[in-house]
Amino acid sequence: MMEQQGTLTGAQALVATLADNGVGACFANPGTSEMHLVTALDGEPRIRSVLCLFEGVATGAADGYARVTGLPAMTLLHLGAGYLNAGANIHNAGRANTPMINVIGDHAVPHLKYDAPLTSDILGLAAPNSAWIKSADKVADTGKLASEAFAASFGPKPAPVSLILPADSAWEQGGIKGPKVTPPSLRRVSDAQIEAACEAIKAAERPVLLINGTALGATGLAAAARLKAAGVRVMTDTFYPKMRRGAGIFAPERMQYFAEGAMADLEGSDLMLVAGTSLPVAFFSYPGKPSLLVPEGCQTFDLGSAETDSADTLTRLADALNAAASAPMAELSLPDQPTGELTAATVGQSLARHLPENALVSDDGVSNGLMSYLPTQNAQPHDWMMLTGGAIGLGMPLALGAAIAAPDRKVICLSGDGAGMYTNQALWSMAREKADVTTIVFVNHSYRILNIELYRTGAGNPGPTAKDMLSIGGPDIDWVALSQSMGVPAIEATTAEAFDKALEQAISAPGPRLIAAIVPG
Amino acid sequence: MMEQQGTLTGAQALVATLADNGVGACFANPGTSEMHLVTALDGEPRIRSVLCLFEGVATGAADGYARVTGLPAMTLLHLGAGYLNAGANIHNAGRANTPMINVIGDHAVPHLKYDAPLTSDILGLAAPNSAWIKSADKVADTGKLASEAFAASFGPKPAPVSLILPADSAWEQGGIKGPKVTPPSLRRVSDAQIEAACEAIKAAERPVLLINGTALGATGLAAAARLKAAGVRVMTDTFYPKMRRGAGIFAPERMQYFAEGAMADLEGSDLMLVAGTSLPVAFFSYPGKPSLLVPEGCQTFDLGSAETDSADTLTRLADALNAAASAPMAELSLPDQPTGELTAATVGQSLARHLPENALVSDDGVSNGLMSYLPTQNAQPHDWMMLTGGAIGLGMPLALGAAIAAPDRKVICLSGDGAGMYTNQALWSMAREKADVTTIVFVNHSYRILNIELYRTGAGNPGPTAKDMLSIGGPDIDWVALSQSMGVPAIEATTAEAFDKALEQAISAPGPRLIAAIVPG
Repeated sequence: MMEQQGTLTGAQALVATLADNGVGACFANPGTSEMHLVTALDGEPRIRSVLCLFEGVATGAADGYARVTGLPAMTLLHLGAGYLNAGANIHNAGRANTPMINVIGDHAVPHLKYDAPLTSDILGLAAPNSAWIKSADKVADTGKLASEAFAASFGPKPAPVSLILPADSAWEQGGIKGPKVTPPSLRRVSDAQIEAACEAIKAAERPVLLINGTALGATGLAAAARLKAAGVRVMTDTFYPKMRRGAGIFAPERMQYFAEGAMADLEGSDLMLVAGTSLPVAFFSYPGKPSLLVPEGCQTFDLGSAETDSADTLTRLADALNAAASAPMAELSLPDQPTGELTAATVGQSLARHLPENALVSDDGVSNGLMSYLPTQNAQPHDWMMLTGGAIGLGMPLALGAAIAAPDRKVICLSGDGAGMYTNQALWSMAREKADVTTIVFVNHSYRILNIELYRTGAGNPGPTAKDMLSIGGPDIDWVALSQSMGVPAIEATTAEAFDKALEQAISAPGPRLIAAIVPG
Repeated sequence: MMEQQGTLTGAQALVATLADNGVGACFANPGTSEMHLVTALDGEPRIRSVLCLFEGVATGAADGYARVTGLPAMTLLHLGAGYLNAGANIHNAGRANTPMINVIGDHAVPHLKYDAPLTSDILGLAAPNSAWIKSADKVADTGKLASEAFAASFGPKPAPVSLILPADSAWEQGGIKGPKVTPPSLRRVSDAQIEAACEAIKAAERPVLLINGTALGATGLAAAARLKAAGVRVMTDTFYPKMRRGAGIFAPERMQYFAEGAMADLEGSDLMLVAGTSLPVAFFSYPGKPSLLVPEGCQTFDLGSAETDSADTLTRLADALNAAASAPMAELSLPDQPTGELTAATVGQSLARHLPENALVSDDGVSNGLMSYLPTQNAQPHDWMMLTGGAIGLGMPLALGAAIAAPDRKVICLSGDGAGMYTNQALWSMAREKADVTTIVFVNHSYRILNIELYRTGAGNPGPTAKDMLSIGGPDIDWVALSQSMGVPAIEATTAEAFDKALEQAISAPGPRLIAAIVPG
């Protein structure tokens, strides 16, 4: 490093610093102000650069990469407009507690005062969804700030951070590499807290433990199984970033999506502990319905949110309870080949049958995802990843990033057709990168969830205009043509048998494939 | 109105108020929190609701609608994530001085404190690109704030505004319609300013007048022709929102895009006046090159930016100069049918040949657009609309909105392939709405402009990674399949003859068509 000092551009110092710290991928959509970053990446073999044709693909992919590797990826975004395009999946990543380093190019500092057309208040735009944000206004600071950004992406809880790189700081000589930094570890809850939780559980009639974060890995779930055997009901949040599941793994219950269902299910619980998450709340509010999903009179106990190591929490809690036995693990149970009409349920059966061991599933299936979730509980062991932030359009980008992170694992992407349209450009990057992703699009030509929500919110009887706003048919989107137009081989399935065969073939072939599953609306 | 008072929901009051004020279109992508807005729109026949499958399409279309009608359209966006998706084209609209009313749904106010997954700091996210922003936290305020938002979108200079509508303010009864408001007019410059500008011109050897805004309509250009005859060189900004042009209309020069070209061209100018714009600046900064494009020693004179009525300014200035004569108008000159290789130049020749009278052109052609711009100067009279904010991906949404605004006019969309990929979902809305748009995609499988900029920024010789970051080939995108997948008939052209024929056919047919023009990279 010493020899290079001073001969590096700011862009080179930034890129080398991130590589030194273990950043292995950059999901990029560059513009003129990022040309020196592009050539710096060209000279950095430790970082794999992946071009995305829309910035929301880049940040969704960075999210998937980090969920699989545990390390942040870098993104390369073009000024404030690029940040905005990237923003919905940054929101999602924040809600998944995903570390991510968004490098946002800006005009050269002396150029800013002229208010050129692409000038914007990047600090203002990016601050609300950035756990850390700084602008490297001096070339000498680029490396140091890259180290800071890397560390900041880990904590106190992992989250996206923003490093703004003005073009002159990128192009000038005088870059200095920043240090390798040790990211902060997740917090351990105190012994006193464990002890108090243990006492509360012993005093409760019907305790329930809501878990997320590291509790959803192999260690955390093993501890959860012991707690379950000790009489604690164990549930996950409705949506979580990643969980290990399938045959041989303990399967917690899952909190219901609709508030009224969740409340009915929780009725009678007299203690709710949360570990790696917060008290459950309704995804949306509805007239006259509760927001907080805690039954009246139920005590609550906070064992730390995403900033804590909840696998550790659960293990120590099980020890404190002397929970020696374990609840049963999920057994392998593969459905028979489904026949007849293709539905979300038969898709799920086929997926459970054919899911390869150690696959990664990216679930943006919206109203159709649940029917794949349920039967795969007894499929081969795998990891399931979800949309946690509610901004649809994450599924395909997340799958892309996961495939870049784990080229030896099959990735399955479940996407609604409405969700998939948001970031359909991800298909092109899958084709270019030969990403080993089988994408299943549930094609019902509808924002089906909104047709359900329209009634739940009591918004009245929909007339033709309202119906049109919730239908994405007229014209129907041809997903096979759309996928093939970007280089991803695709097939349509309209029967359970055809889908089952198509899925088997897609999974057995390397590289990206798409299946348009025509399901009822 | 009085009879309805108190029986309206907040959503109904908001929608009725905007309709009363002349808002005629809503470009929407709703979610659960906007269901009452959807049903309110259902009951409001004065507002045409257009579903967009990505929010950037909605805001780009609202921009096109306003550029054609002079009135803001409403958009309907789903919380902070929807705003982010919409954001790049809001940036562009701001740079085009386009009025726009972005209605952003939010959680019910009492739900916000629970920090549900889609919760975000909408005020913080939207403020930097909103000329006005308020949240209607009380149902009784929804109508009043809709009136305020409408007025604010006009001035002091037209721009996008943001009205946040919490779900409970939308669903509760007690909405009260807001008043009809008279939007503020553009400012007139003072007589003293006109007089001083007149004196400065008389004293100058080589005066140049840079114009934009209302100066680019028929009245302003007629005055510009008189100023030209009086010895004033007249130029437009490189990029402008809309200009009347073609046969019988005065054709000002156009400021060059590349700073070095612009500076060489302006050399010797001793007075630069600006009307409806600001002093010209380089689009990007480059090492060692100037930002401000004003020759050394050249005096400057500010006749008001976008908040002024620059058509009025030019007319009064021409009067003050006693400029009686007029410079020649553009003559009708239609190129012959081009033959041979298909290039940006032959595309331009075909467009000039076939452009129907009173067409609207949406130009997001990036590096290929200029060759269509030049020959159409002598085509049938038309309006040309450009990307002013630099965030590519505006062209197809803008064309969609223009077609909704002017169903009796043919709309031509010029898009780069890289630009088009950002918001390809616009094609679906064109198909659904039977929008009369002929889209020409320049397919060179490249971010061609960046290959030029890479050298101009001196970022060094690109290696394979850098080249990959600027190429959108590998795989090549099949634009015909992409377009057809969303219901827009499409054809590929690889020769000048084939393109000419395809364009003639597309223009003569009503409804959306797409031509993939395969041009050199």
